[in-house]
Amino acid sequence: MESYKILLSEEELPESWYNINPDLPRLPDPPLNPQTRKPMGPDDLSVLFPMGLIMQEVSMERWIPIPEEVREIYKLWRPTPLFRARQLEKALDTPAKIYYKYEGVSGPGSHKPNTAVAQAYYNKAEGIKRLTTETGAGQWGSALAFACNLFGLECTVYMVRISYEQKPYRKSLMNLWGAEVIPSPSQKTQVGRTILSEEPGSLGSLGIAISEAVEDAATHEDTHYSLGSVLNHVILHQTVVGLEAKKQLEKAGDYPDLIIGCCGGGSNFSGLCFPFMLDKMKGRNVRMIAVEPTACPTLTRGIYAYDYGDSARIGPIAKMYTLGHSFVPAGIHAGGLRYHGDSPALCLLYEEKLVEAVAYHQNPVFESAVLFARTEGIVPAPESAHALKCAVDEALKCREAGEEKTILFGLSGHGNFDLAAYDAYLAGELVDYEYPEEKVKKALEELPEIPAYS
Amino acid sequence: MESYKILLSEEELPESWYNINPDLPRLPDPPLNPQTRKPMGPDDLSVLFPMGLIMQEVSMERWIPIPEEVREIYKLWRPTPLFRARQLEKALDTPAKIYYKYEGVSGPGSHKPNTAVAQAYYNKAEGIKRLTTETGAGQWGSALAFACNLFGLECTVYMVRISYEQKPYRKSLMNLWGAEVIPSPSQKTQVGRTILSEEPGSLGSLGIAISEAVEDAATHEDTHYSLGSVLNHVILHQTVVGLEAKKQLEKAGDYPDLIIGCCGGGSNFSGLCFPFMLDKMKGRNVRMIAVEPTACPTLTRGIYAYDYGDSARIGPIAKMYTLGHSFVPAGIHAGGLRYHGDSPALCLLYEEKLVEAVAYHQNPVFESAVLFARTEGIVPAPESAHALKCAVDEALKCREAGEEKTILFGLSGHGNFDLAAYDAYLAGELVDYEYPEEKVKKALEELPEIPAYS
Repeated sequence: MESYKILLSEEELPESWYNINPDLPRLPDPPLNPQTRKPMGPDDLSVLFPMGLIMQEVSMERWIPIPEEVREIYKLWRPTPLFRARQLEKALDTPAKIYYKYEGVSGPGSHKPNTAVAQAYYNKAEGIKRLTTETGAGQWGSALAFACNLFGLECTVYMVRISYEQKPYRKSLMNLWGAEVIPSPSQKTQVGRTILSEEPGSLGSLGIAISEAVEDAATHEDTHYSLGSVLNHVILHQTVVGLEAKKQLEKAGDYPDLIIGCCGGGSNFSGLCFPFMLDKMKGRNVRMIAVEPTACPTLTRGIYAYDYGDSARIGPIAKMYTLGHSFVPAGIHAGGLRYHGDSPALCLLYEEKLVEAVAYHQNPVFESAVLFARTEGIVPAPESAHALKCAVDEALKCREAGEEKTILFGLSGHGNFDLAAYDAYLAGELVDYEYPEEKVKKALEELPEIPAYS
Repeated sequence: MESYKILLSEEELPESWYNINPDLPRLPDPPLNPQTRKPMGPDDLSVLFPMGLIMQEVSMERWIPIPEEVREIYKLWRPTPLFRARQLEKALDTPAKIYYKYEGVSGPGSHKPNTAVAQAYYNKAEGIKRLTTETGAGQWGSALAFACNLFGLECTVYMVRISYEQKPYRKSLMNLWGAEVIPSPSQKTQVGRTILSEEPGSLGSLGIAISEAVEDAATHEDTHYSLGSVLNHVILHQTVVGLEAKKQLEKAGDYPDLIIGCCGGGSNFSGLCFPFMLDKMKGRNVRMIAVEPTACPTLTRGIYAYDYGDSARIGPIAKMYTLGHSFVPAGIHAGGLRYHGDSPALCLLYEEKLVEAVAYHQNPVFESAVLFARTEGIVPAPESAHALKCAVDEALKCREAGEEKTILFGLSGHGNFDLAAYDAYLAGELVDYEYPEEKVKKALEELPEIPAYS
């Protein structure tokens, strides 16, 4: 009998996260303090993060045990299913085997709770009462609201005002889980007030929302800040995805020739791929492809340099591929992929050519998403559909070459809250934004100057 | 280790549906032809349904094999998980064990595809090219669109106009799966044109939409009609839910003292309960509770009589609990529970006191739904939340009595498309409609007169 799903029991839920830091080909360049431009230590981070997470951020231990309390919460939806996309394979008439790891079964509907739950746990354990964060489209905000609610923490989400107005149901979800959702820029912070006094009708940006959330956390006792991607500890928590997928493929008697994930800040992609990276570094022949939108092609068109993580220049300066911290990408529907930079660990691996990258326009991405919904029955999130599009292309290459490759891609979330984007696609109203060369060029002129020691 | 999910492998997917007809305490009264008022035979139904389904409608075989093609499609999401609601139990501080069978993992997000896929299959097998149906809130319409798309059938959905305008994303989902969605009343049918000429701004009703879908099917070659609940064959297909749940509870070493499902037309409730009913009829002590909205309390306040299934009086006349076919319930958010009648088989079992029923107001239902979302992490559909509310009440009774009962309830779908209802609840804007005694009294005066032979 042909199977469609490879499942793991709760006993098979990984007991540790995989930390790639000790296995990187070389030590990554350290993050720099934005004021002093000197390498940051744990103390620099302790205003915003609990020591449990800071220690993970800098850890050189390969395996970090998942606390039992976190594993208990994971079990509400984990292990997640690995699907063999047999109906999609048939529709493509490909000899390739296509597997996808589906993270949309979590309550918030994406992979984001994997780190949100862990972050809430470590903050709670150190006596923190409230977490602040920013959100664009709302996936991350709803994941953190969900996690805070489970651990009895308050949660304040600064939501980019344009999204706050255009995506009311993500806001509803956050409210349902007890979070306070504030349209950003707001009167709640100095950053917000300054911006509103200059531009009362500001629609906001992720950069502004980050600044507000950071200021809120830094200026309130018992309050910390939480970030949904980019940082080492976030990627660490997401490796539970790849660790499960690896076990599931073993059960199916398979190993991927190709692993594909969409890439915004890098935690989804890295979480899926890093557990396989050790094999690759030992010589195993497995390709890994990060998929970006053409409108925000960080890896494929950015430069490898020190840059600010946020447009307001208050977060750490990191060595990464970047389009410039002042670059504001076009309003594509894959809101989670609109980040100017990427996780430093991932960027290092890309620089070392252990990871490949490719960029796509919106329309071909949605074309694949519709095909997927019509064959596999699940409506993909626009972000996840980027990985899907690449998997489809690779499967079609296999058809032409007559190759039976094994393709694994990450379906990081469902698109139940993104149907307006599908409407726009089906109505032929989606814009394929060209690579904004001039805007990027200008943004790259604003990179910080870094002293010679770094 | 405490487990949260009891999973079945695809090999354990049931091979047959369970047909309760041969096990009913007595033969149900036959459906009557609305014109002749004589018992209907297969020929009366063949304009609308394929013979494969008609034969199931009247079958006295206890087990009906699930065609391999249908099982293949089921495997896209089935077997569905059975959850032990440990976080909810903790929050309620109850000694009761609460299990829930979760059907929201299907692409369309509810139990409806279980029958939609089967219906599409049997129609396709008999050369039908297109299916028509009606939908209110959109759960059924999107399930049929999903199923037709998988079998290469065209699909026309008449969607109650007020829902068409208020619930755009369910319409998007249907479009995504290739269905034509027509706001009802429409200019496409005689019924629709007549109504629009009398009331150009008509917001429509489920009764009108049924009439349009039936007329469309009856007047077009190669076109059939499809119904999402009430009929025997629909309930038959839904028994896959209860059959799986039974196996899963066996794996957990448990048997339910209490099974709870929400009840609109009866297919969700019956699909979950009927596989346990045989045990009950053999003397096993298991209670089954159908949960209704106070605004449409068919079992709890209706009468047991012959009535039309649709308000336009063109479908079969059935012996059932009814509030009168002209009764139009208030606009509660659980759109799937706004039906004036119920499945005849279920009504017979209720009349024989093998099934109990209870009715709830919206606000307490949503109160439980919010508690569930905050503990278990899944946002329940408003319909499913009715069953949940009853499960919570029963678990609290267990706490008072110190009884460790095993409760199984059906979480028939997720509420990702119902967040406006949650917003209204959280804002204190939900109306608890009282039982509309006078309206029902008036509607019950319009029951059809039935000749003595029936």
